[in-house]
Amino acid sequence: MRILILGGDGYLGWPTAMYLSRRGHEVAVVDNYFRRRACIELNREPLIALPNLNRRATLWERVSGHRLTVHIGDVCDYPFLLQVFREFEPDAVVHYAEQPAAPYSMMGHRQAVFTLTNNLVSTTNLIFAVKECNPACHIVKLGTMGVYGTPNIDIEEGYLEVEHKGRRHRFLYPKTPGSLYHLTKAQDGDLLYFYCRMWPIRVTDLNQGPVYGLTTGESAEDERLLPMFNYDDVFGTVLNRFLVQAVAGVPLTVYGQGGQTRGYLNIQDTLACVELALLHPPAPGEYQVFNQFVETFSVNDLARKVQDAGRALDLRVEVQHLPNPRREAEEHYYNPAQTGLLSLGLKPHYLDEATLCRMVQLVQKYRDQIQPELIFPQVRW
Amino acid sequence: MRILILGGDGYLGWPTAMYLSRRGHEVAVVDNYFRRRACIELNREPLIALPNLNRRATLWERVSGHRLTVHIGDVCDYPFLLQVFREFEPDAVVHYAEQPAAPYSMMGHRQAVFTLTNNLVSTTNLIFAVKECNPACHIVKLGTMGVYGTPNIDIEEGYLEVEHKGRRHRFLYPKTPGSLYHLTKAQDGDLLYFYCRMWPIRVTDLNQGPVYGLTTGESAEDERLLPMFNYDDVFGTVLNRFLVQAVAGVPLTVYGQGGQTRGYLNIQDTLACVELALLHPPAPGEYQVFNQFVETFSVNDLARKVQDAGRALDLRVEVQHLPNPRREAEEHYYNPAQTGLLSLGLKPHYLDEATLCRMVQLVQKYRDQIQPELIFPQVRW
Repeated sequence: MRILILGGDGYLGWPTAMYLSRRGHEVAVVDNYFRRRACIELNREPLIALPNLNRRATLWERVSGHRLTVHIGDVCDYPFLLQVFREFEPDAVVHYAEQPAAPYSMMGHRQAVFTLTNNLVSTTNLIFAVKECNPACHIVKLGTMGVYGTPNIDIEEGYLEVEHKGRRHRFLYPKTPGSLYHLTKAQDGDLLYFYCRMWPIRVTDLNQGPVYGLTTGESAEDERLLPMFNYDDVFGTVLNRFLVQAVAGVPLTVYGQGGQTRGYLNIQDTLACVELALLHPPAPGEYQVFNQFVETFSVNDLARKVQDAGRALDLRVEVQHLPNPRREAEEHYYNPAQTGLLSLGLKPHYLDEATLCRMVQLVQKYRDQIQPELIFPQVRW
Repeated sequence: MRILILGGDGYLGWPTAMYLSRRGHEVAVVDNYFRRRACIELNREPLIALPNLNRRATLWERVSGHRLTVHIGDVCDYPFLLQVFREFEPDAVVHYAEQPAAPYSMMGHRQAVFTLTNNLVSTTNLIFAVKECNPACHIVKLGTMGVYGTPNIDIEEGYLEVEHKGRRHRFLYPKTPGSLYHLTKAQDGDLLYFYCRMWPIRVTDLNQGPVYGLTTGESAEDERLLPMFNYDDVFGTVLNRFLVQAVAGVPLTVYGQGGQTRGYLNIQDTLACVELALLHPPAPGEYQVFNQFVETFSVNDLARKVQDAGRALDLRVEVQHLPNPRREAEEHYYNPAQTGLLSLGLKPHYLDEATLCRMVQLVQKYRDQIQPELIFPQVRW
């Protein structure tokens, strides 16, 4: 399969590119380096310095024998995207090319407008490029479980059958996101669902929970192939932050009461899920939705697990409850469905102590790079 | 009350400005003339030539003694909007500054991206200007009933209480719009609802049905004060198109079977509803939604009514069913609620034969201006 990865320089885009190319697919990657620029501008650089995308592709080819085509440019630039489509002629596109951080989207007006326009115009351009060049091309868009918020009823997989006053209707599951970033991810889904109703395009939306981990099978051969790993308050996700705090000897920063519960998955499962989605495209005009996570944990659960792993490694790990910088429920009902990807054959990795210890040990190798002051929350909403 | 009207040059913005100023409010209007430019570019000019907004304000002051402040500029230009806020210090803002035509939004990539960014960035800028300058300022945004689509259950007023597997949750009513324009109107509502959850801003969303009519109490004194009245396939709404077709002796163009049912209202009721909303702001942090229409009709109902009015005026009116240029259900369940504005005191105008005849007679005065070839649908989706 010829697979185009938009946002191929990112935390998930780069490991996905290696993974799919090693599994026999022909892969091209696109990135505009937005995330690298933002990390420098905000003084929130990743833990592990990264060669640029062209250099990483060269390294990967040397290690694996698989060639990745690299295009540096902006998916919001429609003529650029059309040119990539015409040159590469993808059978499928994996769309990671969005501004991915909730705190970034809540920093102020400029970041809000950027997040909104980047995430929705990139998606619109992708839809039109597919319609223009090859309507059969399967769009696999990375979404987030965060679009659902924390409703007081079960979260179903994409759609909700509603019975009301004796009549029934099947709606796209209503979204109540908790940050502007998450709202734009509901809105990009609304765009894709809308154009599936209008045109015979094929879309899979993967509503993914927070991802943890650094290592994938492909990066084991050369640590310069590790993904962009942020541990700061803006771009770092909660468990990755905790791993770094444990190593730095800084208390784990739990926001508020810590009862916030989400569905998590290992980065290796992300890659497997994306390939499963690619191998199972929906029919033309169908908007297929999977909830992509493996286990649900509260923030307090995660903190306890990291404390336990720390103990096993002779690290003293403390927990500090901070005033919550976000507006969110700190205790709530949470029961999301996730059967679609399991039924396609996903073999999940669970968050056991051995896994946590391996992650902590890898972070320990980069201990000198940690800037603990980056971890404390600076963005409030 | 100091009321800022965004999109004050448009079909509804201009009559709203006159109406509110005559009722003792201090009114400023903003417009970037997008609609005028688009009408010229697409060769779809309004039936009645319009003095520019400054000249109309001067005319209105001469007729009524009420001064309107005019700002020509783009709400998507945030520094411009902030400056207007700081100069005028509004207590409330009526937001009409969006690209309002479904067919325009479906013409192609350029129009899609324009509609998306214009409608969402204008709304985002407005939210941030309110938060920055005066969080108590009430935002009244004109929405559309079209955001709901035609679900198989009753359309409630803004929210839907869902019972699912023995638990209950109140969601914003899920939207299934039928054009990109309508989708952006669901998305601007999602933005407003989101920021109401985050910040103590006050928002009323008026989900309005298609509006018909030309005359309001204020324009009766000078026909140069009539609103921007489009009858073409892109900017004209269905009943206004039918009025012009009846006068031009062209068959009424019914798309498909004609069972498409919507909630309609007279332009005079729009003005009353907007003022009722302004006089009843929600609490800080509340997103208040009203469904704004008076009666539901199918397209076939409207065609029959125009035929009857034509007969009363000795006009021979025929009906022609065209292949539907849109993707929409032509027969469907439709039972929308609309009690909120009635309970605030709306006294509706109904679409009776006398009203229809007066509208036809006014259009007859401009008969020589009609270009019948503009009425046939050119945009398909």
